Amino acid sequence: MRIADVSVAEIEGDLLSEGLKRVQREVDSTFDAFLTVPDDTRARLVEAMRYATIGGGKRVRPLLLVSTAELFGVDRTAALRAGTAVEAIHVYSLIHDDLPCMDDDDLRHGKPTLHKAFDEATAVLAGDALHALAFEILADQGTSADPFTRSELIGTLGQASGMNGMAGGQMMDMVADEEGVDYDLHTITRLQQLKTGALLAASVEMGAILGKVPPEGRAHLRAYSRDIGLAFQIADDLLDVTGDQEKAGKALRKDEAQGKQTFVTLMGVDQARDQARALVDQAVAHLGGYGEEAGMLRALARFIVERDR
Amino acid sequence: MRIADVSVAEIEGDLLSEGLKRVQREVDSTFDAFLTVPDDTRARLVEAMRYATIGGGKRVRPLLLVSTAELFGVDRTAALRAGTAVEAIHVYSLIHDDLPCMDDDDLRHGKPTLHKAFDEATAVLAGDALHALAFEILADQGTSADPFTRSELIGTLGQASGMNGMAGGQMMDMVADEEGVDYDLHTITRLQQLKTGALLAASVEMGAILGKVPPEGRAHLRAYSRDIGLAFQIADDLLDVTGDQEKAGKALRKDEAQGKQTFVTLMGVDQARDQARALVDQAVAHLGGYGEEAGMLRALARFIVERDR
Repeated sequence: MRIADVSVAEIEGDLLSEGLKRVQREVDSTFDAFLTVPDDTRARLVEAMRYATIGGGKRVRPLLLVSTAELFGVDRTAALRAGTAVEAIHVYSLIHDDLPCMDDDDLRHGKPTLHKAFDEATAVLAGDALHALAFEILADQGTSADPFTRSELIGTLGQASGMNGMAGGQMMDMVADEEGVDYDLHTITRLQQLKTGALLAASVEMGAILGKVPPEGRAHLRAYSRDIGLAFQIADDLLDVTGDQEKAGKALRKDEAQGKQTFVTLMGVDQARDQARALVDQAVAHLGGYGEEAGMLRALARFIVERDR
Repeated sequence: MRIADVSVAEIEGDLLSEGLKRVQREVDSTFDAFLTVPDDTRARLVEAMRYATIGGGKRVRPLLLVSTAELFGVDRTAALRAGTAVEAIHVYSLIHDDLPCMDDDDLRHGKPTLHKAFDEATAVLAGDALHALAFEILADQGTSADPFTRSELIGTLGQASGMNGMAGGQMMDMVADEEGVDYDLHTITRLQQLKTGALLAASVEMGAILGKVPPEGRAHLRAYSRDIGLAFQIADDLLDVTGDQEKAGKALRKDEAQGKQTFVTLMGVDQARDQARALVDQAVAHLGGYGEEAGMLRALARFIVERDR
């Protein structure tokens, strides 16, 4: 479809690239405000937290949260605080995943991982402190004047990141790596829904919570985020196989080296790509009840499968 | 002072030992209820969480919380949930502190540390999942029907455990160890207030929050917990020097081996013991406005300096 001489893809591309840039700037400055380096030996901890959080990352989760909140007229500062809390959880999980005892990665967002730039103990502790920071931010009245909303945000993020969410998915992944268990497509889907999908879904959910949308009004948004969550992971698996390591800013070809079962090994590159695109179309269709105001969420869905990093 | 033939110390001893035993049983069964082993490969994560939480630890923090809550007639189940959340934070911090890249300890509560019993990656992840569980528990209506109370509990625990609390104190401690910085008594006091004191203080504060005591009504309780927090750490340093490793269930004589500055190296054993006892007397004096109902908090204060583990 072309409007005048500009394709929808191009319009979406501009919208998205502006949206990402803006939220990247805003999340950076929100982290900067929370992470004032103290005048004592805690300085190393806070500098490590700053190193890991400021100036890196696509900020897909904050943009998801802010864009959902925008549908319901939520104050942008409040939405950004919640988005920064989700990002704090995401970043802590990357720090811990990169540790030598976990994935043992040297590169993240194109620079040395935290335990390389600092040391392992600092990396463990900085991850822990970011984890706590996320809940501190959400519990503060600056995020929402309504304590019920704050409590709901916290419950949603806690559940998405713990044993029934991200940490649980991470463990399933570890068991597969270490014990050489071959999961079927159903189990890999479940694993990824926990490991990656739960936090993406929480981002959308938290936007709706800030917008005071009752649970029964969130069905379409939940369907949207379930589909993009899965598409996101398939795209990640594709990137591992077909991506450019320079652009990705992290080590690639790891799945193959480990002989790991992924969406791509189970479905093949072409079918995996088709499946990711079909999921995105489906995700966009779930937003049918919204008009132009959902443009960013649509663009984000497309970006998720087309991204090169 | 003797009442009939039984000293106050003996009465307090019985009260305390009953109180500890009861709360140990209750915290165990609360963890048991939260940590159902799932029927998939997340099982290893949840088993590791159970290994670290059930059947170990003095449960000083839950007893502090429950005993404070009791002063204000709080429902015991609610207080126990909050106490279990604090304990989840305490346990996660022990798991991460014991890691090879941190204190590299093999023994905790008389059994192998989690990374020894399982592996390092599982230990990192189990710590993270317990961290999330703490906030999940507090955000749930089962802990308090009042969302303002839930949000206040979470804010208090988040602050006490993050960079301006436990994690910050841990970093100050690490810097001293690694860079051989010799702190003065003032800085060690500050370090310990963050590393150990903040979570003990949060336990008392959260009991008061559940009791709907407004911040201005918490001054005496805060003074009490500040004093026992410091006494607790002095007692810990004393235990490291004079304790029985068998009873303590963990490695001792570590401070001396590391040439580390502690309350004991700075003050000497006798003065440190006097100081700890004076702090406990002062802590008990802060409870002067309460009657018999504060018996457990008084007994706990005495236990904190007299304990052998």
